[in-house]
Amino acid sequence: MALIVHKYGGTSMGSTERIRNVAKRVAKWARAGHRMVVVPSAMSGETNRLLGLAKDLMPDAHSAQAQRELDMIASTGEQVSVGLLALALQAEGMQAVSYTGWQVGIRTDDSYTKARIQSIDDKRIQADLDAGRVVVITGFQGIDPDGSITTLGRGGSDTSAVAVAAAIRADECLIYTDVDGVYTTDPRVVPEARRLSTISFEEMLEMASLGSKVLQIRSVEFAGKYRVPLRVLSSFTPWDIDLNEEARSGTLITFEEDEKMEKAVVSGIAFNRDEAKLTVLGVPDKPGIAYQILGAVADANIDIDVIIQNVSHDGRTDFSFTVHRNDFKRVTELLETEVVPKLGASRVIGDPRICKVSIVGIGMKSHVGVAARMFRALSEEGINIQMISTSEIKTSVVIDEKYMELAVRALHRAFELDGQAA
Amino acid sequence: MALIVHKYGGTSMGSTERIRNVAKRVAKWARAGHRMVVVPSAMSGETNRLLGLAKDLMPDAHSAQAQRELDMIASTGEQVSVGLLALALQAEGMQAVSYTGWQVGIRTDDSYTKARIQSIDDKRIQADLDAGRVVVITGFQGIDPDGSITTLGRGGSDTSAVAVAAAIRADECLIYTDVDGVYTTDPRVVPEARRLSTISFEEMLEMASLGSKVLQIRSVEFAGKYRVPLRVLSSFTPWDIDLNEEARSGTLITFEEDEKMEKAVVSGIAFNRDEAKLTVLGVPDKPGIAYQILGAVADANIDIDVIIQNVSHDGRTDFSFTVHRNDFKRVTELLETEVVPKLGASRVIGDPRICKVSIVGIGMKSHVGVAARMFRALSEEGINIQMISTSEIKTSVVIDEKYMELAVRALHRAFELDGQAA
Repeated sequence: MALIVHKYGGTSMGSTERIRNVAKRVAKWARAGHRMVVVPSAMSGETNRLLGLAKDLMPDAHSAQAQRELDMIASTGEQVSVGLLALALQAEGMQAVSYTGWQVGIRTDDSYTKARIQSIDDKRIQADLDAGRVVVITGFQGIDPDGSITTLGRGGSDTSAVAVAAAIRADECLIYTDVDGVYTTDPRVVPEARRLSTISFEEMLEMASLGSKVLQIRSVEFAGKYRVPLRVLSSFTPWDIDLNEEARSGTLITFEEDEKMEKAVVSGIAFNRDEAKLTVLGVPDKPGIAYQILGAVADANIDIDVIIQNVSHDGRTDFSFTVHRNDFKRVTELLETEVVPKLGASRVIGDPRICKVSIVGIGMKSHVGVAARMFRALSEEGINIQMISTSEIKTSVVIDEKYMELAVRALHRAFELDGQAA
Repeated sequence: MALIVHKYGGTSMGSTERIRNVAKRVAKWARAGHRMVVVPSAMSGETNRLLGLAKDLMPDAHSAQAQRELDMIASTGEQVSVGLLALALQAEGMQAVSYTGWQVGIRTDDSYTKARIQSIDDKRIQADLDAGRVVVITGFQGIDPDGSITTLGRGGSDTSAVAVAAAIRADECLIYTDVDGVYTTDPRVVPEARRLSTISFEEMLEMASLGSKVLQIRSVEFAGKYRVPLRVLSSFTPWDIDLNEEARSGTLITFEEDEKMEKAVVSGIAFNRDEAKLTVLGVPDKPGIAYQILGAVADANIDIDVIIQNVSHDGRTDFSFTVHRNDFKRVTELLETEVVPKLGASRVIGDPRICKVSIVGIGMKSHVGVAARMFRALSEEGINIQMISTSEIKTSVVIDEKYMELAVRALHRAFELDGQAA
């Protein structure tokens, strides 16, 4: 019998009928003898409804005092969810109690709307578990040192669930979601994509950061830091399927590199088309140019992804990087008005119609020639590579976005990922 | 310049447009130099929506663990309101901050869904006021000794506002509502009813307990206990009306009996038709019968209002009392199955079609013959009095409900209440 955390997304909590099904599923686990903690999201649509009301009153809520109020408002969605789920569990005959983040000491910093969890006090949770209760805890939120409610940003409930699992040293944290696991790539692009029964934490981290939307990246980081075994599985199975079958379903994110993992050089293909490319041409090649260009962008609070600096010719170089496509216009203006004149660079060129395609695999650590195999597969399809970025367990290329599906399919085939579930 | 508490009901908070108007009104007071605390209710309909979801999952949430969850859920309505109002105030250029009940130490007992406030810690509120902020505090809720969220029951936001006003020693607590003050009686029944510019605390307490729905009775009790000057006024005046005019409008509930009050023997006529009458006939007249009859009713957690015991004949008496009409059937059964056999009484008769009409006036203390004048006025209309109950400042009669409007109009005229606003 184990100590288990379940996390349910907004879709699973979307109506009282669905909440009743969640309660039945949790009750099944509790009746099998497991100690259960549940972290539900707000009912689907609720957070948007609440923030819509706020936006009506203040279209640009950027100040700290305004963002504090946004968190006050948005955090109620999860508070309603935990109360409803606790009631539904009680209606199933279970002992159940709900808590907000502040009630179980989920302490965060004071970065309203995007706070980070600093600590969780597990005493109250453990006492309730000892008393045989199912404990239902709000996702997405905590309390700052000043006693104000904070939220963790969109998708924060995944992080809450993992953080609670770490605090109580849970045996496994199960993330119930609208997909049935982690796939080698998006099945909508590659019908032959297959579900991975296990994936290493490091690979999952790359997949999440490269645009696979299954898990919020901070929750994966948290799981890694505290070595919480994490399972992504479907919330659409009937609540009364066999518990052992359910417990083995989905994808387990593990910390042990077993022999099976060694076999696959590449575990998955990630991609996203949310980025845009910018190049500053004719930059005088002297120390500090990267800082002068990217510092200005970072000061404007804009995230930078891939960065490439080419070798210089005649004392001048070209400097390229990618940003989120929403920031493309702002960054272009920033470079043209502030950076280019100051550096004495020639000019800025940009392209918002790019995409990034990445191969991810822990096997790349010990296999040579993986990147070359990737480049050959792309070349055979006539796809021009614009930028390359590598890490120990992934290789990313930036290409024209019109080739995205073609590239993903070619790579999926080249690394022999097509086929049955592993 | 004064320390002022404003309380706004759900209708005033019913949409972002209305919340914006509340913010403009509060800003007007703050800009005039007043230190402002605001206690808003949930947006109209919100509490019912939330409790409707809960009812879907558990139709009869009577256990303490279920009622704790109801409070967890229902309290979010006010939390959203304070966040939205603080944002609206900030959008008006004010410094504003919102707090939940637990954040400002509104401590209650643990009677979920109907908790009572025990103390409020005013330190945080005073510090914000000192810093020039408008402080917005959730109505309707607090925190129990165990750290669980409690609610104060329907209309509890009035009580919250008065309790906060008492804790910070406010100069006046203004209750903005959908009527423009306290009337001599319900203007829908008597078109000649007039608004009272002042009413004593004791009279207001009787009016509230006798069915005048302007203020929740517990808020009046609280105001009396802590001598908080309370003003009931309309939230439908334009937000930009002259502040001095607004500050004098409505009805002030005072603790000083000024000369004006002395003039009116009766200040108002209250009535309700929510009650039903029960009579146990042929009760052996011996010590303890009142306890044996009413104890059984009280044990079933049913409130009793008017109680009459007639003189006995031949060692037997009749014992009558009224209860809420919703409890009529339950109490009838209880009396028939448990009380009548035990006491050796004859039988139970009941009448749910009654009403209670009361005259209220602090002048009754010092004027004789007031009750006689009431009975004569009713007699002239041919209205039979079934029960009479008196206190120092009120006389109530129970009559057939079909005569209710007739009785109220006759009494309003008999005590010369018709006419212009006082």
